[in-house]
Amino acid sequence: MAEEQSTAGRAAATSSATVKEDQVVNPWEVSAKDGGKIDYDKLIEKFGCQRLDHSLVSRVERLTSRSAHVFLRRGVFFAHRDFNEILDVYERGERFYLYTGRGPSSEALHLGHLVPFMFTKYLQDAFKVPLVIQLTDDEKCMWRNLTVEESRRLARENAKDIIACGFDITRTFIFTDFDFVGGAFYQNMVRVAKCVTFNKVVGIFGFTHEDHIGKIGFPPVQAVPSFPSSFPHLFTGKDNLRCLIPCAIDQDPYFRMTRDVAPRIGYQKPALIESSFFPALQGETGKMSASDPNSAIYVTDTPKEIKNKVNRYAFSGGQDTIENHRKYGANLEVDIPVKYLGFFLEDDDELEHIKKEYSVGRMLTGEVKKRLIEVLSELVERHQKARAAVTDEIVDAFMAVRPLPFMFS
Amino acid sequence: MAEEQSTAGRAAATSSATVKEDQVVNPWEVSAKDGGKIDYDKLIEKFGCQRLDHSLVSRVERLTSRSAHVFLRRGVFFAHRDFNEILDVYERGERFYLYTGRGPSSEALHLGHLVPFMFTKYLQDAFKVPLVIQLTDDEKCMWRNLTVEESRRLARENAKDIIACGFDITRTFIFTDFDFVGGAFYQNMVRVAKCVTFNKVVGIFGFTHEDHIGKIGFPPVQAVPSFPSSFPHLFTGKDNLRCLIPCAIDQDPYFRMTRDVAPRIGYQKPALIESSFFPALQGETGKMSASDPNSAIYVTDTPKEIKNKVNRYAFSGGQDTIENHRKYGANLEVDIPVKYLGFFLEDDDELEHIKKEYSVGRMLTGEVKKRLIEVLSELVERHQKARAAVTDEIVDAFMAVRPLPFMFS
Repeated sequence: MAEEQSTAGRAAATSSATVKEDQVVNPWEVSAKDGGKIDYDKLIEKFGCQRLDHSLVSRVERLTSRSAHVFLRRGVFFAHRDFNEILDVYERGERFYLYTGRGPSSEALHLGHLVPFMFTKYLQDAFKVPLVIQLTDDEKCMWRNLTVEESRRLARENAKDIIACGFDITRTFIFTDFDFVGGAFYQNMVRVAKCVTFNKVVGIFGFTHEDHIGKIGFPPVQAVPSFPSSFPHLFTGKDNLRCLIPCAIDQDPYFRMTRDVAPRIGYQKPALIESSFFPALQGETGKMSASDPNSAIYVTDTPKEIKNKVNRYAFSGGQDTIENHRKYGANLEVDIPVKYLGFFLEDDDELEHIKKEYSVGRMLTGEVKKRLIEVLSELVERHQKARAAVTDEIVDAFMAVRPLPFMFS
Repeated sequence: MAEEQSTAGRAAATSSATVKEDQVVNPWEVSAKDGGKIDYDKLIEKFGCQRLDHSLVSRVERLTSRSAHVFLRRGVFFAHRDFNEILDVYERGERFYLYTGRGPSSEALHLGHLVPFMFTKYLQDAFKVPLVIQLTDDEKCMWRNLTVEESRRLARENAKDIIACGFDITRTFIFTDFDFVGGAFYQNMVRVAKCVTFNKVVGIFGFTHEDHIGKIGFPPVQAVPSFPSSFPHLFTGKDNLRCLIPCAIDQDPYFRMTRDVAPRIGYQKPALIESSFFPALQGETGKMSASDPNSAIYVTDTPKEIKNKVNRYAFSGGQDTIENHRKYGANLEVDIPVKYLGFFLEDDDELEHIKKEYSVGRMLTGEVKKRLIEVLSELVERHQKARAAVTDEIVDAFMAVRPLPFMFS
């Protein structure tokens, strides 16, 4: 508890300072210092979470008897809170549950949106545990000024993309806040809200006096899926079941708050496993923008669009002439095709080969991009096929408020 | 809309002023200036509501073909907002619905708690309209630091006292927030919350930075029963049904806010009919206090307790000696037995007789108190009998989320 309190205190001090912050990372804004790259080491220090080191990855492999997911062994998920305790629980033969989610603000997801879901599917398969997925249609209605109806429609559309990631329906409950808030879930919202002052959310989230009370009152909605008692149809009698939350690190403020409150209301703190951000095509200093479709690859893109976007917009670390490239090689630190391959090319040997050949100039940008286009086209095509098979009935089935009798089998 | 905005603006200006306010009236504090009496004329002016005058009372009698309730003809309900529009609606042959409620903070209700429910029952009978009753167990959990479980238990206990007032189950839906918040109701909460800034609730309710976000986020919960779309099981397809809220005037801030927001989200403003406060036994300057059982008559009191409380504690306007009393008569302005009879003695002629005889000294305090003890004992005994007949099954039946097919019959 002391840990979260001091962290929140630090966040408050930082955000109320008048000097320009190094970098801003919260659920609604991610911006690096002076247009540079996010400094993840500083973020870990500021948020007070822990680095996910190699020994933890090895432990996961040992416990699950399978090789770790690409996102884990290549450091996409790079930070955590109490993930080691979750592994202790698992090693003792007990179980836990997974909680992740999404704010359904756009019609089509881009590849960055898929990252937490692809990783969560791996965790579900590897640990054989239940999963709750929250679609915060209420949040998007309040932050993006969407109507209730439009937010709900987007939530269902996004649910299809999420289901297309391959979640196991016997272990997965998907819900939207506009449909599911109430009863035990709402009771937990009130329990949490009682423990968090306005000053506190100003410190954690940077809310102002001009923000509406919907925003100010929202954090408990995202907090309470961390507690098994919010889901009586799933976890009755399992009040001490631990929860593991895979998410991007911009969501950390919600769960810092949640972990601060949990012991005060007699609940277990959720554990977290947190990812870095997926870069825009224009480079890690750019942001993927909903208003610029060329800043990201969308799961609805055609092979032609993917080819065009990668070739035209993916920021290259290669040299400006072939001669210079052969001579100096590519700068992998800024090269987006290599970074994207790091997310989606599963073969470690091939990736190492590409990085080596490219960095010494034996491989050209065009060749790397060609391989990336193949990888992304295959990924997107596979996703589109899977999504086309997700009917409204399947969405209803995932969202049905029902027990999951085989969720731990 | 301009009306509510300017009112809220005035409230904000007042509560942020550093000078001592004349009087404070909000849902959590009622205190007069310098320990005197509440100035209801000033309250009407400050809140921006209208006085409920004799012509409106006559119109009610004409439209309902029955004599107005004691609380109406004797000015207990003394202020309103758009009550005339509700009567217009009714006169055109259309219908409306009633909404009232209670924060279930105590085991036993006192007579003051019964006032809005007795009056609401009269309105339901006279106009033959549906009624929703909200038990804000969430509010009491947050303000009184009760547990969720204790708040829910008190809500059910209080529901029995409310049902004992004689509501018609074919026209009445009772709900607790912890059970009913969700779905369309929650969607309306979000619609309202989006329209109200932190600054606004500071102005209306006097919240501070140290208040928890449960309090700050609560007002929409009490606002949305004003909108028929919050109750799809009752009012589907009746989005323009008007709502009339009978309540004590300390609840006005909630509905000032609600009326301000309503047109911005395409909803009808609720109308209000508002009562003055029921005085403590110790006099109108005193407050009925939960920690002092002798400050009020409770619906659980025995005849002996009622007799003892009235005789020992009811503040008398009579003179200190029989000689002086015969000479000067009683001061009815401060006399609690006469005020209580004004609430509960139905016979206008008898009340006038008592007031006249008492004021000129022909009737003694003891005689007036004796009559009051009879009236209250009968009232409380009748209530206790009715409450004893309210089983858990009956509570469940009133709280069942169900259509009310005969609610307008």
